[in-house]
Amino acid sequence: MLVPLDELRRLNRRALTLAGYEEDEINLMLDILWYAQLRGNIQSIVQFAGPGMPKHPEAGDPSVIKETALSVLLDGNRNAGMVVMHRAMILALEKAAAQGFGMVGTRNTCQATAAIGYYVRHLALNGFIGLAFSGSSKKVAHFGSYQPIYGTNPLAVGLPTLDEPIVLDMATSALPLFKLAAATMLGKPLPVGVAMDAAGQETIDPQAALSGALRSMDRSPKGSGLGLLAEALTGPLVGAAFANVGDTEHNWGNLILAIDPELLVGRGEFQRQMSALHQALKSCSRLPGVQEIFLPGEQSGRRAAAALQSGYLEIDDQLFGRFREKITGL
Amino acid sequence: MLVPLDELRRLNRRALTLAGYEEDEINLMLDILWYAQLRGNIQSIVQFAGPGMPKHPEAGDPSVIKETALSVLLDGNRNAGMVVMHRAMILALEKAAAQGFGMVGTRNTCQATAAIGYYVRHLALNGFIGLAFSGSSKKVAHFGSYQPIYGTNPLAVGLPTLDEPIVLDMATSALPLFKLAAATMLGKPLPVGVAMDAAGQETIDPQAALSGALRSMDRSPKGSGLGLLAEALTGPLVGAAFANVGDTEHNWGNLILAIDPELLVGRGEFQRQMSALHQALKSCSRLPGVQEIFLPGEQSGRRAAAALQSGYLEIDDQLFGRFREKITGL
Repeated sequence: MLVPLDELRRLNRRALTLAGYEEDEINLMLDILWYAQLRGNIQSIVQFAGPGMPKHPEAGDPSVIKETALSVLLDGNRNAGMVVMHRAMILALEKAAAQGFGMVGTRNTCQATAAIGYYVRHLALNGFIGLAFSGSSKKVAHFGSYQPIYGTNPLAVGLPTLDEPIVLDMATSALPLFKLAAATMLGKPLPVGVAMDAAGQETIDPQAALSGALRSMDRSPKGSGLGLLAEALTGPLVGAAFANVGDTEHNWGNLILAIDPELLVGRGEFQRQMSALHQALKSCSRLPGVQEIFLPGEQSGRRAAAALQSGYLEIDDQLFGRFREKITGL
Repeated sequence: MLVPLDELRRLNRRALTLAGYEEDEINLMLDILWYAQLRGNIQSIVQFAGPGMPKHPEAGDPSVIKETALSVLLDGNRNAGMVVMHRAMILALEKAAAQGFGMVGTRNTCQATAAIGYYVRHLALNGFIGLAFSGSSKKVAHFGSYQPIYGTNPLAVGLPTLDEPIVLDMATSALPLFKLAAATMLGKPLPVGVAMDAAGQETIDPQAALSGALRSMDRSPKGSGLGLLAEALTGPLVGAAFANVGDTEHNWGNLILAIDPELLVGRGEFQRQMSALHQALKSCSRLPGVQEIFLPGEQSGRRAAAALQSGYLEIDDQLFGRFREKITGL
């Protein structure tokens, strides 16, 4: 169905208010959720329609565990992933602006960061190359196994151009977690080849997949390797839980890096050449049936622009119905 | 056939001597080629059996274009990719040891870096997280296109543990370039699903693929996105050629980064927890028919150890025959 944006915005605000967040936290989270939802990443709607996103009763402001000229290690103090990652983004930007490089790790969050493309895009809009990785609860098996050991472990890259940054934001799993949650909630089958049941058999039953595991993005050792990279950077490197080690349900980690192109060719030159690369890719010859070559983030960015122009966003009827009922019925 | 290691070593040295390199360059390149060959990456044997790896007549020592506290931009001055990348590795290590982070970009090389896992493993053996990306001639199409616009664009990650580092070293293309070159030389068909001909049709004919394009690692936008990331970091960021812009045959770029875990949890703690992650992965439940769960680089490392122990390396008869004939017949 086509959902009016002002209604969606109102419901988002109400959901976050009911979840117990402060006004400044709500405004910040609304901005990030909005970015994600308009791009078709509706993990927050799935979550609000289900268990919600309650603020942890002991949640506090993120605090600094360690700081160097180039880095900060933050304790999220059980606050929401979005609140903590936003703080991390600001600190990474400050460090990189002063030193050319900034890296911020976070631990002790237990809610999603929503869409890590948001944070790296912000870095790229400021002229920096942004990289981000997010940990979460363990749902993905390593190649050759059917035991969940990784989070869906998204990685994101923001690359500045003269115009809109190029934003790659991808799960290293074959399915993002929210699509598994949505399929479970709506009783819809999963795509073929993305999940295994608890005995390691291929399944399209979301319930069976929940007690089993998701596969890596490309069902090959390469995808597992990227999952391992994200696990290492959001677990061991930041002191958060990882694999089956530590409190994997309540101590998620994140990492964000900002790199100043001034360290090499310079910001202006990098942006000019990135725009030339963008142009070269858009002009590539197209396979039969392909109308347009898309760069990472471009289609979802266009979807967001179209929604803003029309004032409506297309969301599954049943899912939106549950979301609205849950939020207005509380 | 089983090739005696001392014969292989002798032929490698002779090939590099005939190619015109200096003694110190030869020793360095031998070390890197050895690492790759023992692990089954025989791109150098394919190249020696074919066009060779002649030192560019104008090749000079790498020179510094720009230096900051955290970074160096090197001009490779047409020297071999291995020689230049080795210098970049040393500089990245020095910067990271002093500052916590080091990044070195290179331009103006036109020979392969052989196996970028070599360089990041060296960083990881010293306690640093290593990341590397390598550009090369354009053979890979973006998702939806059949026009070659990316190199096979490998990325490599080295992660320290208490023991042997974990080394992920993977092409972002569906096939590494040397396997295409070997198939062409030996007239063997390609695997299904890795290549397109000049009209964009699926092909297993290596000659047709050479005038067409390879596909991305997972034939999806994610693989293309990773190819784009490597293209951006080895082209626009370092002032080398990229896509169809610049001298794509003679100005390849590379990037290497070293990150000190002391910026966050510390080196010792990172290595301890990485070993715990290693252990957790090795202990995962296995799918039917799977004898062992392998981490990135583990199988190829074991192959290298077995070759060293036996004194022999398994190489395709026809390929090794051509290599030997070419080198001893010159």
